[in-house]
Amino acid sequence: MAKISESTVSRLSHYYRVLDEVSGEGGKVISSQLLADREGITSAQVRKDLSYFGSFGRRGLGYSVEHLRGQIRAILGLDRRWRVAVVGAGHIGSALLAYRGFAAQGFDVVAVFDADPNQVGRADGELTVRHVSQLSAEDAIDIGVIATPVRAAQEVADALVAAGVRGILNFAPRKLRVPDEVWVRAVDMTTEFESLSFALSQPHAPRRRRAAG
Amino acid sequence: MAKISESTVSRLSHYYRVLDEVSGEGGKVISSQLLADREGITSAQVRKDLSYFGSFGRRGLGYSVEHLRGQIRAILGLDRRWRVAVVGAGHIGSALLAYRGFAAQGFDVVAVFDADPNQVGRADGELTVRHVSQLSAEDAIDIGVIATPVRAAQEVADALVAAGVRGILNFAPRKLRVPDEVWVRAVDMTTEFESLSFALSQPHAPRRRRAAG
Repeated sequence: MAKISESTVSRLSHYYRVLDEVSGEGGKVISSQLLADREGITSAQVRKDLSYFGSFGRRGLGYSVEHLRGQIRAILGLDRRWRVAVVGAGHIGSALLAYRGFAAQGFDVVAVFDADPNQVGRADGELTVRHVSQLSAEDAIDIGVIATPVRAAQEVADALVAAGVRGILNFAPRKLRVPDEVWVRAVDMTTEFESLSFALSQPHAPRRRRAAG
Repeated sequence: MAKISESTVSRLSHYYRVLDEVSGEGGKVISSQLLADREGITSAQVRKDLSYFGSFGRRGLGYSVEHLRGQIRAILGLDRRWRVAVVGAGHIGSALLAYRGFAAQGFDVVAVFDADPNQVGRADGELTVRHVSQLSAEDAIDIGVIATPVRAAQEVADALVAAGVRGILNFAPRKLRVPDEVWVRAVDMTTEFESLSFALSQPHAPRRRRAAG
């Protein structure tokens, strides 16, 4: 299989969501054009993305929803369960714990940690908040979510790496230093807000839509 | 002022956060090298970013923290208040309402909307949840946050645009169709999780760190 770019992976994730929806509505077949329309891209791009893993719709017939859904599911690693730890039991951490959607996709939050002694021992949903120093390789965490204040983020990243965690989702607006074998993705709400305030502050309205969500 | 790229704007946002921290610690002067180290980039890149708006540190002396902080603050549009509406009073929406950090940066959540009659009328912090159909130009919203289920996202975006909103922060994992003069930024946690599960599923560990957070 050819190397798949990060932007292709993001689009596969979006296609998967559309297929989920269409499947839920009882749809059996989907065209590259419909997938393209949902993403605001060309159907040629959709066909190229799907050709990476050898899925070719039949001209005029489209793709089998279930087959394509199963293929993308496997590619994205969603045909297994992932053990997720949330570090930082504040507003964002608690919202993640309360949200059931991630579990439906295979991401099980199995542990929650905080550095604040007042948080430790508190029940948060079905989990009890543990002190971050208790995080260890025995927790067998696949993905660590950093939802701490920005100052603590690097220290928490180091602790996650020391506990063998290879995937980190970072909500703190700070670049993290991690070893090469560790993958970091960032969800930086502050920076997104500030990108909007920057854009809206410009004297002239933009004439062209930017990379949109 | 030369056109500033989206990635430069993101870095300005990160520099601003570092300057905030250094300022809070009483620091008066900062080097491009320190800003670079925090971002994991070169000091040449930092100097280039800052030269866009004519801020040149003095060789060997660095930048004045307060002056640079004030300049970036103005560039990012953070020297005024922004009126933010959250649409979708679920877990993510409520976490945003509860988080005080955005208000500290100038983003005031002044209204919260939901389509669910069971949510409408409920108090969420200091606000009362209103029905999304009540959103109007009179609310004078600058930035709308879409924290609804994915199916509702486009309809909500249309309602925001109709109410004159020009900036949208979209938490729903779906591309939005908006007019050219409207700016959309996406915070797509599901796709970020799936990018990690994809990366961790690859048979060989990556040898090079990816665009990290």
